[in-house]
Amino acid sequence: MKKLSLSASNQFDEKTFKRFLLHDSAYFRVLNFNLKAGQLFPVHSHPAEGQLTIQVIAGSGEFLGADDSSMVAETGDILVSEISEPHGVRATTDMRILVTIAPPI
Amino acid sequence: MKKLSLSASNQFDEKTFKRFLLHDSAYFRVLNFNLKAGQLFPVHSHPAEGQLTIQVIAGSGEFLGADDSSMVAETGDILVSEISEPHGVRATTDMRILVTIAPPI
Repeated sequence: MKKLSLSASNQFDEKTFKRFLLHDSAYFRVLNFNLKAGQLFPVHSHPAEGQLTIQVIAGSGEFLGADDSSMVAETGDILVSEISEPHGVRATTDMRILVTIAPPI
Repeated sequence: MKKLSLSASNQFDEKTFKRFLLHDSAYFRVLNFNLKAGQLFPVHSHPAEGQLTIQVIAGSGEFLGADDSSMVAETGDILVSEISEPHGVRATTDMRILVTIAPPI
């Protein structure tokens, strides 16, 4: 049993998004990405079994998918995606996201 | 790819905590529990492989563990626990938690 704190990783970088690995185990990986307004977490996918969530914990932007698709992403929204499905995020305001990947790849 | 919204489940019950199943798959299960101030999500465990996170998304309280142990649980705090390890939550204020269990049991 351990406690993580999202306040400890509340840091941004003007050049590119910040990435924090919060937890990694055989069961899942938890990451926090912080994007300044306008920054992009590029659309990507991995040829692996499993799913991930992208939870908006602060700010707003868009969830990005295949073929230039997008969905509004506001604080409290959670995207569920296959790991093998294209997914990404664009920040409209400064934006914090929590990503959980199971199983980790 | 699907989008969940935590604002849709922002509901409480004076009698006992509210439970919302947000996502269930072979990889993980995501639940939102909302506790009024003073309500308890009792300490429990399951004899299963895997881990879970309990993320405080609003309010504050305590993470509870084995042998009456507890840790402060504030918005932005995330408890990581084995599924087989005793875990619970007590709400000090009205409190919302997001629970992710992988693999689901």
